[in-house]
Amino acid sequence: MIKIAIDAMGGDYAPKEQVEGSMKAVKMIDDIELTLYGDETEIRKYLTDETRIHIVQSDGVISMGEKDPIGAIRGNRKSSMALALSSVRENENDAVVSSGATQALIAGAHILVGRMKQMKRTAIAPLIPNVKGTSTIILDAGGNLEIKPEFMVQQAYFATVYSKEVLGVENPRIGLLNIGTEPGKGRELDKEVSLLFEANDKINFVGNVEPKDILDPPCDILISDGFTMNIAMKTIEGTAKGMGKILKTELKKGILGKLGMLLSARNLKNFKYRMASDEIGGAMIYGLRGVVVKAQGSSKSNGFYNGIRQAATIVRNDVVNKVQAILESEVL
Amino acid sequence: MIKIAIDAMGGDYAPKEQVEGSMKAVKMIDDIELTLYGDETEIRKYLTDETRIHIVQSDGVISMGEKDPIGAIRGNRKSSMALALSSVRENENDAVVSSGATQALIAGAHILVGRMKQMKRTAIAPLIPNVKGTSTIILDAGGNLEIKPEFMVQQAYFATVYSKEVLGVENPRIGLLNIGTEPGKGRELDKEVSLLFEANDKINFVGNVEPKDILDPPCDILISDGFTMNIAMKTIEGTAKGMGKILKTELKKGILGKLGMLLSARNLKNFKYRMASDEIGGAMIYGLRGVVVKAQGSSKSNGFYNGIRQAATIVRNDVVNKVQAILESEVL
Repeated sequence: MIKIAIDAMGGDYAPKEQVEGSMKAVKMIDDIELTLYGDETEIRKYLTDETRIHIVQSDGVISMGEKDPIGAIRGNRKSSMALALSSVRENENDAVVSSGATQALIAGAHILVGRMKQMKRTAIAPLIPNVKGTSTIILDAGGNLEIKPEFMVQQAYFATVYSKEVLGVENPRIGLLNIGTEPGKGRELDKEVSLLFEANDKINFVGNVEPKDILDPPCDILISDGFTMNIAMKTIEGTAKGMGKILKTELKKGILGKLGMLLSARNLKNFKYRMASDEIGGAMIYGLRGVVVKAQGSSKSNGFYNGIRQAATIVRNDVVNKVQAILESEVL
Repeated sequence: MIKIAIDAMGGDYAPKEQVEGSMKAVKMIDDIELTLYGDETEIRKYLTDETRIHIVQSDGVISMGEKDPIGAIRGNRKSSMALALSSVRENENDAVVSSGATQALIAGAHILVGRMKQMKRTAIAPLIPNVKGTSTIILDAGGNLEIKPEFMVQQAYFATVYSKEVLGVENPRIGLLNIGTEPGKGRELDKEVSLLFEANDKINFVGNVEPKDILDPPCDILISDGFTMNIAMKTIEGTAKGMGKILKTELKKGILGKLGMLLSARNLKNFKYRMASDEIGGAMIYGLRGVVVKAQGSSKSNGFYNGIRQAATIVRNDVVNKVQAILESEVL
């Protein structure tokens, strides 16, 4: 049995969607067992089936808009997030799934789960949808605003193992997000990373990828420093939001337009659905001694279920130990 | 008369669209006189009205995909781009408009027009459409991949004068593109720039702006280093392109969907039109001793006309001298 800790109180719609997503997960996935950390009374309002689900009472909550993530974790050791994370360190569980505040989860994972010995920096790696209908690993989405090229090599190893083992990509291609496709483009960091990647036979480096191809990239993994990637991710969000607004005003114009929009309503909904990353699952925090998956804060039951499914696949395929083996082979 | 040099051979559809845009410009704007630099035979194929339009024969072309911009300019002093730029240095013209290769134009402007004495770095500043239907100045869109905070202050002065004088904004608000809105967010660069902007009473600093608000920003000018801004700009392009593809496949689904799309065709076209920046005009290169406007490489006549209109407004309102005065007052 794969044992997964659920932070039932983290997320915009907690605990309802977390509890419903958990029930769906045990129904759909045979080899998992879940422990829900949270307010038992609240959880029981939504829990209608306790098969392979346990509850552990928590005390205190990390708020979604937490400004002092480290302080929040240190001051709330009995919160649902902290208890779930600690249970992994204690080997009571194999993984944690949380849709709580991202920075608090990263800080908590560092303090309560701990970094892999050889891994110099952790990273957070979400999946984004692409035009082909598959998903692209985005790395690092905000962990390290400034980072050394060597540390990005380690992160690339992790993403390669993840892509193979969890997404089933045979020989995952890595692209460096950059302002031009030609070799030698970018800042000093980008130039150094390119050289390191090219010289490394464990990395299938396909070169620079321009952000104009970000939703249709020639690679399976797109990498940059945390600042740049965060800017790119939030720009996708902003453009989608802005375009949606403009599209809505334009489409509604005129009587024919209104009728057209009415007829297109279902398709427009499908469009929104494909753009939402809820279907894809969560972001894994790379480089920890355990498996921590961050589901979106706005996760509904289905998105949260996908996060659990993802965590189970990561554990089942022994991702952390496989990365560990690569890092150890480097040290020798 | 405002005298404007036209690089008639630069751009994906040159010289046709450049010539047609020029004829439109003299018809619409009374106080301008244009000199078209290019292949006279080619230009005359499209030139049907020579009112206030002169032609100067050029020799050699800077290709749009030029990989060695400095070499291209140095080796093609008689090209349409080089001749147009040189004419500004010689005071034969007040401004240049070109839709030629961006990097070659920036390099050429440095070599042939020259930097303002006090200005430490030039910058390229396009306008992008926003949800409100106006436009936002984006700075720097690729000139300086790595830059000192003090140099960004100078660029902020330039953008402020431009916004006031050319776009008519009374008290232009400047936002720093960053990964979070709270003060103290971002890299060392971002933190230092924030402090400098806040302490400067010539800059109306409104703080950090997240890229999720990039098409609906709470400011008139959005600033960052050239690398970051280039990533953001190209991510907007990539998201718009990717979303367009997904939208198209989704909208076409089913019979009702097809009918709906048919009825919405005109509105969808308007939508595309609003997203295209052709209507808005070109990007000014800030910090030169003259006025250089870069129209999009894919400019059609209307986009190119807008670039000329913009250049005329910049000259008419004496933007360069007004910035110069601010920089000189700083030195004292």
